[in-house]
Amino acid sequence: MKRTAFFISDGTGITAEALGNSLLAQFGSIQFNKVTLPYIDTIEKAVEAVDTIDQAGITDGQRPIVFDTVVDEATREIIATSTAYKIDVFSAFLKPLELELGSHSSYSVGKSHSINEINRYMDRIESVNFAIDNDDGARTQHYDKADIILTGVSRCGKTPSCLYMALQFGIRAANYPLTDADLTQTTLPEVLIPFKDKLFGLTIDPFQLASIRHERRPNSRYASLDQCEDEVRVVERMFRKQKLPHINTTHFSIEEIATRIIAQMGLKRRIS
Amino acid sequence: MKRTAFFISDGTGITAEALGNSLLAQFGSIQFNKVTLPYIDTIEKAVEAVDTIDQAGITDGQRPIVFDTVVDEATREIIATSTAYKIDVFSAFLKPLELELGSHSSYSVGKSHSINEINRYMDRIESVNFAIDNDDGARTQHYDKADIILTGVSRCGKTPSCLYMALQFGIRAANYPLTDADLTQTTLPEVLIPFKDKLFGLTIDPFQLASIRHERRPNSRYASLDQCEDEVRVVERMFRKQKLPHINTTHFSIEEIATRIIAQMGLKRRIS
Repeated sequence: MKRTAFFISDGTGITAEALGNSLLAQFGSIQFNKVTLPYIDTIEKAVEAVDTIDQAGITDGQRPIVFDTVVDEATREIIATSTAYKIDVFSAFLKPLELELGSHSSYSVGKSHSINEINRYMDRIESVNFAIDNDDGARTQHYDKADIILTGVSRCGKTPSCLYMALQFGIRAANYPLTDADLTQTTLPEVLIPFKDKLFGLTIDPFQLASIRHERRPNSRYASLDQCEDEVRVVERMFRKQKLPHINTTHFSIEEIATRIIAQMGLKRRIS
Repeated sequence: MKRTAFFISDGTGITAEALGNSLLAQFGSIQFNKVTLPYIDTIEKAVEAVDTIDQAGITDGQRPIVFDTVVDEATREIIATSTAYKIDVFSAFLKPLELELGSHSSYSVGKSHSINEINRYMDRIESVNFAIDNDDGARTQHYDKADIILTGVSRCGKTPSCLYMALQFGIRAANYPLTDADLTQTTLPEVLIPFKDKLFGLTIDPFQLASIRHERRPNSRYASLDQCEDEVRVVERMFRKQKLPHINTTHFSIEEIATRIIAQMGLKRRIS
């Protein structure tokens, strides 16, 4: 029988999910049915949420776990009336932080919308556009404006990593795929030479590469293990010979690839 | 004088940042210098981190705030020796959760890498590819495969919202921009009619639209307030007349736009 875990917030629910998932991941033997209830920002919605939680407890035969990041105290008090086991983030940490900072918290929902929000928004949009415009080697004439240029064989994770860096951190990330034509030698493709300092290589286990490519083009030469092994071997030799910083993406999520690149290259975020 | 806040993790640091930013946003009057220290996964790195933290305290003249999501206890004990004020997430919540769940936690870093991870990875990649391939009305022949189709005037936030839904939730999101040709009437563009159930409208304050467009094409008719006012007026009339669900994105972050669409449309996530 699965146990239900609720992530409850008066905002997006992203913090409650991140925290809840981190904690629940420590209990690998237990299966959870995860439900996010975002924008619980009125008394009515809170009452409804309590009902949903209590129903799940009856269905499961055991009380749900609630990760609560609701800021508003009145709403939180209603959530607290449910039968669930509650991890109440603001109750646990906000009072002690107030003491430490010698300041009262505003108990306001979501991030502060300062005058800088519009700039932050535009930085994100510009970075997303940059990633799309400079995806897959489509254009190379804007590499001078890139913060980073990812390179590697087709399907090793370049595009989602670039987009993640753009959306989360406002980083201008381009990517250049190394194709058969580039892989006849271990020198860099000519177009990349002037930007060597911005280059970061991605590599991947050939078996995984083959299985990813197989989803895209089943039974093609492109997806064959032979082809994948050949490409990966040459690319890794090129990375070593050119002394390019690089990582193997096989066991990493997109978040991990992106944050490792940022840490390793010391990239500055435009947004935070 | 700014006070320094550290987000420390043996993984990506994303949970520590989400939690820390939520809590610090409650203290709008205090300026923080925020530093993320990810992948603190050895004794050596922990010792180095303590040094960095203590140095910041000396420079600032007040002790830093540390948001610690390190799972490994030995590492966390070293972080605990710093002079900072610490919010230690796993210490606060993991022991009580163990009791509640009647199970020992594995104290392992990051998300569990189950056999499903490769499927999750491919779902994300496929969704990102879908969003790119079906961006900006470039192609419309795959709308039958879309989970959602965003529509609205140029620069109202469609592309980043689609990519965010793809990356975070594995949702297949297409977007179709409404251009002058579409805005001579309040009927839907013909290509959208068969997919009315998947349509979601974005609108925006004309002043903000003009300032966003101005960044892209300064002093153009496209960016003029008159043009933006006209387009927004017609689009909003179309949304109402066609009874399309829609939101005004002016005061929302990309996370908020995406999560509100998901909640309002009841979209199912492919990944979580």
